[in-house]
Amino acid sequence: MRKSLKIRELRRVAIVGVGLLGGSIGLALRAAGFGGVRVGVGRRESSLRKALACDTVDEVTCDPAAGVAGAELVILCTPIGRFEALLRQIVPALAEGAFVTDVASTKAEVVRLAERLLPRSVRFVGSHPMAGSEKTGVEFARADLFQDALCLLTPTARTAPVAVREVGHFWEALGARTLKLTPARHDRFLARASHLPHATAAALVRLAQAQGAIDVAGPGFADATRIASGDPAMWTDIFRTNRKAMVQAVDRLIAELAGLRARLEKDDARGLEKWLTDSKEARDQWVARRYRKPRGREA
Amino acid sequence: MRKSLKIRELRRVAIVGVGLLGGSIGLALRAAGFGGVRVGVGRRESSLRKALACDTVDEVTCDPAAGVAGAELVILCTPIGRFEALLRQIVPALAEGAFVTDVASTKAEVVRLAERLLPRSVRFVGSHPMAGSEKTGVEFARADLFQDALCLLTPTARTAPVAVREVGHFWEALGARTLKLTPARHDRFLARASHLPHATAAALVRLAQAQGAIDVAGPGFADATRIASGDPAMWTDIFRTNRKAMVQAVDRLIAELAGLRARLEKDDARGLEKWLTDSKEARDQWVARRYRKPRGREA
Repeated sequence: MRKSLKIRELRRVAIVGVGLLGGSIGLALRAAGFGGVRVGVGRRESSLRKALACDTVDEVTCDPAAGVAGAELVILCTPIGRFEALLRQIVPALAEGAFVTDVASTKAEVVRLAERLLPRSVRFVGSHPMAGSEKTGVEFARADLFQDALCLLTPTARTAPVAVREVGHFWEALGARTLKLTPARHDRFLARASHLPHATAAALVRLAQAQGAIDVAGPGFADATRIASGDPAMWTDIFRTNRKAMVQAVDRLIAELAGLRARLEKDDARGLEKWLTDSKEARDQWVARRYRKPRGREA
Repeated sequence: MRKSLKIRELRRVAIVGVGLLGGSIGLALRAAGFGGVRVGVGRRESSLRKALACDTVDEVTCDPAAGVAGAELVILCTPIGRFEALLRQIVPALAEGAFVTDVASTKAEVVRLAERLLPRSVRFVGSHPMAGSEKTGVEFARADLFQDALCLLTPTARTAPVAVREVGHFWEALGARTLKLTPARHDRFLARASHLPHATAAALVRLAQAQGAIDVAGPGFADATRIASGDPAMWTDIFRTNRKAMVQAVDRLIAELAGLRARLEKDDARGLEKWLTDSKEARDQWVARRYRKPRGREA
């Protein structure tokens, strides 16, 4: 039973779902000195051919069980909606002691499922590399996608410490910083930092579209709504598997907007400026912490 | 009385307020072949020295009346809150037949004020070049800021046709496309395309900050909230001078979010996916129309 996930010592890694994220893992593995076999598992032969053509994987198969057999590390990169069926398919084929992780954007439901279905003989921990964009597809895969990205790890009381440590090292070898938090806390945080902003971007597009105002929109609108061009099926999965935290976040946003509305109604100049100043300062400080680059060169 | 604003024939242009926009007008004028004098009017000597150092203007003064005297074109680029006092100061000094415009982000109040205070002998039309960024200050001025930008012109029944035509040509000479609409329609459109997105970005930062969720935020959040780093004083002016349309837009957004909340509560997979798909399609079509560039190279 392998004790570490040192990239140069690994012989076989299975990437289940070779899109933007899975493909980028393949490219980043090779760039980080991985000398073994990258197995790509997919549903459509055409997608797998593309994954091979982009040199993101070395072997491909449409059979998940065959794909994960003998792999020391299995990374699930498929849509969340397919996790349950997929886990059931791969369980019998997983090598004893294999490390298993995933890249799903919500964690409570996924981790619960994995802990219920995976045998104790494999070492699972949930991962959420916060990388990617509104683009989908292996053709956008990049070896440096995880460089300076934040990868969240979501261990539970059932997680083997070796899984947290080694999967953490794995992501760090691909260039990411890692941070541990519980699945529930992850989902609450992500509701506010990612899922609600996504929903809001979609709502803003609808409002601007409804009256034709979108035709006078400029670069600020383009930035503010860019994430609304993301894959609707993927985001439906994310919203559905994080419903509780999303509903709470939507309620908080509605309350915040109601406060703004009251300041507008009263023409409360000081209140409006303070509200905007607080936000600007919070964001500027976050940019300085997060990107540690000179002002104006943030993203 | 000059009949046209042909850039190569102009001798004297006054830029009142030499920040990012005013400074960029100065640079763009020179790049477009303007051979006359660019007069910069400001409140602080230090800002004016910076404007000179950046070669955005040729002469500077802290006296608005002296600055606009003899100018064939006067462009007001100061915060909206200063417009009334400024207009009163320059009225006695404006040359007969001078063209006057502004770059304010809201138009109904500004245009009403200008039409009330300016004499019939000058030719005023409101402008709103949709360029700029969350950055402020003449040091960010660029000669190509208006290239491919949209500049909205807001004539009224009182506007001289020659003002609309010539000020339009002026912006086009600086690289912008122009579009005419009434001040009221401009403000309704901008509430949805710009002012509400700005307010929403600020609200999202507040929500993420409140719980510490901001520390797991990534590039999607950075894009979605970039505009929240804009100048609070400027945006307070914008919100206040567009209160009515803003309140309506906030109400519409709250209704849209309530609809999303209902779909989340019901775990309405089909409803959520349709909601997201409609937004994605509207945005993708807008990007294709607006930027007319290959996919993925939008902004």
